[in-house]
Parts: sequence; C-alpha cells; structure tokens
Amino acid sequence: MVKIVGIGGSLRPNSYSQIALSLAAARVEALGAEMEILDLRAMQLPFCNGEDEYLDYPDVEQLRNTVKLADGLILATPEYHGSVSGVLKNALDLMDFEQLDGKVTGLISVLGGQSKSNALNDLRVIMRWVHAWVIPEQIAVGQAWKAFSDGKILDEKLSQRFDQFAQSLVENTRKLRGVS
Amino acid sequence: MVKIVGIGGSLRPNSYSQIALSLAAARVEALGAEMEILDLRAMQLPFCNGEDEYLDYPDVEQLRNTVKLADGLILATPEYHGSVSGVLKNALDLMDFEQLDGKVTGLISVLGGQSKSNALNDLRVIMRWVHAWVIPEQIAVGQAWKAFSDGKILDEKLSQRFDQFAQSLVENTRKLRGVS
Amino acid sequence: MVKIVGIGGSLRPNSYSQIALSLAAARVEALGAEMEILDLRAMQLPFCNGEDEYLDYPDVEQLRNTVKLADGLILATPEYHGSVSGVLKNALDLMDFEQLDGKVTGLISVLGGQSKSNALNDLRVIMRWVHAWVIPEQIAVGQAWKAFSDGKILDEKLSQRFDQFAQSLVENTRKLRGVS
Amino acid sequence: MVKIVGIGGSLRPNSYSQIALSLAAARVEALGAEMEILDLRAMQLPFCNGEDEYLDYPDVEQLRNTVKLADGLILATPEYHGSVSGVLKNALDLMDFEQLDGKVTGLISVLGGQSKSNALNDLRVIMRWVHAWVIPEQIAVGQAWKAFSDGKILDEKLSQRFDQFAQSLVENTRKLRGVS
Repeated sequence: MVKIVGIGGSLRPNSYSQIALSLAAARVEALGAEMEILDLRAMQLPFCNGEDEYLDYPDVEQLRNTVKLADGLILATPEYHGSVSGVLKNALDLMDFEQLDGKVTGLISVLGGQSKSNALNDLRVIMRWVHAWVIPEQIAVGQAWKAFSDGKILDEKLSQRFDQFAQSLVENTRKLRGVS
Repeated sequence: MVKIVGIGGSLRPNSYSQIALSLAAARVEALGAEMEILDLRAMQLPFCNGEDEYLDYPDVEQLRNTVKLADGLILATPEYHGSVSGVLKNALDLMDFEQLDGKVTGLISVLGGQSKSNALNDLRVIMRWVHAWVIPEQIAVGQAWKAFSDGKILDEKLSQRFDQFAQSLVENTRKLRGVS
Repeated sequence: MVKIVGIGGSLRPNSYSQIALSLAAARVEALGAEMEILDLRAMQLPFCNGEDEYLDYPDVEQLRNTVKLADGLILATPEYHGSVSGVLKNALDLMDFEQLDGKVTGLISVLGGQSKSNALNDLRVIMRWVHAWVIPEQIAVGQAWKAFSDGKILDEKLSQRFDQFAQSLVENTRKLRGVS
Repeated sequence: MVKIVGIGGSLRPNSYSQIALSLAAARVEALGAEMEILDLRAMQLPFCNGEDEYLDYPDVEQLRNTVKLADGLILATPEYHGSVSGVLKNALDLMDFEQLDGKVTGLISVLGGQSKSNALNDLRVIMRWVHAWVIPEQIAVGQAWKAFSDGKILDEKLSQRFDQFAQSLVENTRKLRGVS
C-alpha cells in the first residue's frame, strides 16, 4: 500500500501549517493511502552540522527511517522571510539521497499575508536536488489566520484545492512508484 | 565608521564556509571597516518557533543587537541540498525587519562539488524580502576541499574575486549608508 | 544629472505593464531625474540568435546605446507563465555587460491574478548575472485590470508603493553612481 | 505510443543546445517513443503580445497543435544571462494550459562557462506554473564548445547522463500518462 509521510515546518503550538498538513493528510488517508505525520514539535532534532551521525539524538534515526520507507511526502512550511522555514530546511539537511531520492512530494506553504510562491519555488528546487519528484499541484495558503476554523477550511475553492492536491499526490505516487 | 557583521551557516568544526567568511572579513577590515563575526558554533540559538521572545536563549538578543547595529552583512553558507543551510536560515528567521532592513549584504556559498548559484539565488531573494540590499558581486566556492590551504586561497582568480567582493561591499555600504 | 531608462515587457496596445511603467516614470521625473522610455511596441527588434551584430535592425543599436548611457533602469514585465515575458528577456539577451553592468534597477511586474513575485525573483537573478544592482523595493501589481483608471492608480497603498519605488530608485542611483 | 516533442531555445545555426536536443531525442527514439523536434530556426513565430490569435503566423498553430498532441516534452535552452533564452520563453508564452498542462518535461541547458542550474531552475518553476510535470533528471552542459564533436558527446559521464535523462523521461511519461 502506498505510504505518505508528512512533515510540518513550524514549531508553533497552534501552527497553521500543521493544520494545513493534517487537513491534507486526512484527504490522503481517505484515498486509501497509509499516512504518517512526523511532528517536529514532538521530536528532538539537532542542528545539522554536516556529519552523518547524531548519536545523542535518536529522533534523527526515526526521521530518516520513516522517510526512507515512504513512497511520497507532504512538506508543509510557514513562509518565513520569503522562503522555507529554517526548521524544515534543517530537517531536510539531516537527510540525504538515501531517504529522499525518488520520493513523490507535495508542497504546501502558509503565509500571514497574501499568498506567494517563494517558499514553494525554493522547496521545489531543493527536492529536485535530492532527486525527488514534486507534483505540479501545490498549495499556498494566504492570510492563514482566517483560512481555518475548528480545523476546517472555510473557503470552498481552497478546500477543493486540498482535494485535488491529495488526489494528485496519491494517484501519481501510485503510478510513479508502482504501488497500489 | 562602517560596520560589517559576518555570519557563517555551518556548524562543522573545520567548516570551509567559516574559512571563506574569515578570509572575506580580513579583506573588509583591511579596507578600514569595523568587522565582527558571529560564530554560530559558539552561540546557543533555538529553532525559531515564530515567537518574538526567547528568554532562555540570551544569544538571540546578542544576534539581534549585533546585526541591528551593523551597516552591512556577509552571509556565508554551505550549499546543502541546493540551497542555504537550515542553520543559517533559522538564524535569519530569528530576526526581522528591525535588524535586517536596509543592510547591505554580500553573499558567499561553499560547495563540495562544482560551483553553483542555487544557495546564493535563494539568499538573494530572502534578503530582498527583508528589504536588505545585496551587492552584485557574490562568491560560490566550488570543490571547497581543495580551495584553501592554511587559511589561504590557492587559486589566484578566486583570491581576486574575494578582493573585489570585499571592495564592493565596503565601498557600496559606505555609499548607501552614508557612513565613512 | 541622473538618467533612468524604462523598458516595458508587453507588446499589447493597452498593456498594464506599460501603464505601470509610465506611472513610475512620471514619479522618477518629478524627483529631478532624466527619464526615457524605450517602447518595444514601437521598435523593431529581432529574436536574439547569440550573435553580436544585427545590421538589419538599427533599433538594436538604439536599445544598446540608450541603455549604455543610463545610470538606472526600470524593467516592467507582465508575468507570463510565472516569469518574465519572453519579449523582455529577449530584449535583455540582445544586450550584455557593456550596457547593463553596474546599472541600478527597479523591477515591476503586472499580473491578471493575485500578486506574486515569480517574475520579479527571476528578473532579480538575471540582472545580478549581468552585474546590475536591483533595489529592494519592487512592485507586483495583482489583478491589474482593476488597478488603474484613466492612467491613475486607484488604490492609495499601491500608489504610495510607486512613490517609494521611485524615491528609492532615484536616491540610490545617485548614491551608487555618484551623480546628482 | 508515447510521443515526445523537443524544442530548442537557440536560433544560432550551429547551436549547442540544438545538438544536445538532437542527442537526447535520438536516445528517446531508441527507447521506442515517437519523437518530433520543432526547430524554431525553421519556424516563423511572432513575439507574444498576450493575444490568442496570430493569423499571420500559421507556425503558431503548428507549434500549439504539435505540443498539444505530445505526452512529453524536452526543452533545451542556452543559458543567456543566467536564465532561459527569450526565444524559448516567448515560444512558451505563445502556448497555454491547453497545450502544456500535464505534459511530462525534461530540461536541458547549455552554457559557455561552468555548468549552472539557473536556467533549469527558472524553467522548472515556469513549467510547474502551466501544470506540467518536470522530471528530476536534468542536464546542464557546461563549456559546451568542448562537450561535443561530430554530433557526439565526448565525456563518458555526460553521455550516461543523457542516457538516464532519456530513460527517465520515456519511462515516467509512460507511467504518468498511461501510454505504452
């Protein structure tokens, strides 16, 4: 069965990108995929220092093993200073081709202001660099503070965008990875 | 007197980007500027969680105050996965317009493989986002493991590039900031 | 006297990016700069074939000479397919360091949909490549069909953004180029 | 049968990007795909003016119809000023979702200097914008003047990269488009 792993790039307790990630994850599961979220807020990860081993941080191994076994990924980041959060980039820096190569990835960004694509563009090039696929469907949630209520998406068009995102991610991961 | 602050994006003990930063810094000082390097390896910084205050981490205030008082910046990053290191991006995430707006910035990246501009391009757009200036001169050090010896630059053309980089940074920071 | 040259990247008769360019140009002139607009709609330019000479197209020389004598540039592009128009990129391809190196550039993009920064980001990196400066202030006009009326800017905040853009371009071109 | 269309972004008679395109095309054909190259040097295309119809230029229809019927694309561009050539961007501007949506695309760039990814990065984001897929394998041919001889690739590793590029493009176009 196709397996998707989600990682959110915000450490804020009530993070909108974590909400967006969970909403996408629910849709992915409804399509029959196995879905697992790695919550960086509950993990102890070090700053990447370019080394391979982080013996004091067993969560590095958990991150690596979980992503390695995935067919697809959802990366959801707050847009900080017009790019991916340092938190999420650091988590990606802790991994390498062994974990990321060939993974089919869907990208979500969340902003306080008007929706932009800067963080999504940077993430697209970063994931290409590690030889991952990135689906054309992507979501930039602008003015995130009024996008969600009670864990639901208020705008119907945005909700449909989440539907299409999950549909494309699951369907095309199955095609590209040859899993059911 | 014009003041330049340098930040290196690698935590590796013998980091090439830290070497590149110190070589650029020496040239900047030789041109009569005040130069200070913030060594992230010696600072205790948290992951940015989107909040303003980090009371348990006094180094956040040191980072912010030092950058705030600067006229110009040198950002030197290892290129991880075709972009800026998460470590450096996180340090930038801990700051905001108050510290970064209007600063004149020079960018350096360091790679194990052939020189590319991906990290430099991303940093250029990130620094624009916080309303900083970025000088046209930039340095991508490829195959960094054979670029330096005893803290010196082996290739004459690369050495000249460092000269021009420092010259442009100091001269144009003076012009744009109206300092001597 | 500081001289600014503007180039618009749309060939449409009632182009919004040409309107935006003329509005920025009027502000630049009001600040005491000499301003000249090169209207690509009235020029006969060939597709760039990588050669230096285009003897059948005297407008290539006019483009090159006019830009060469400028201190600063305004580039205004419609955002086509999430990037700079081919028309504007081709005009830039017809020039080289001799014309573009060291010029201080302000960037404007115009979109039918919501304001994005993709074309601006690409232009920023392109202009850096030819060693031009790009000012931090940039303008992305979203939903351009309702932004202007009778050649005026309807939204007060957008109008102020044009003011600041022109102010920064003229002031900083003077500083960087040492002209009055 | 899977159909791939190639477009080269240079108008130079002995263009290296056209050579690179033909070498990739030969490999694609050898894998059993139908391959057609649209040579912009032999077509009369106008500058895009944002309109839908170009009645004086029947080659616009040929371009649109040929790409519309394709499953996959190869885009090969010279890197001009650190980005895609205006010629190729203009050809893309003449098309829209109707032709480009869902197409599986492989990207090649050709440079005089050291291999960079700027043009490839920009093209990746542009093709995403029109909802196309872009394969992770991409080729940047640096110092193109010494890369080819008699229409062959001199460097064995670069030749293998072309093999992998064609292999991935054909195989994954089949998977994503459900064609044989």
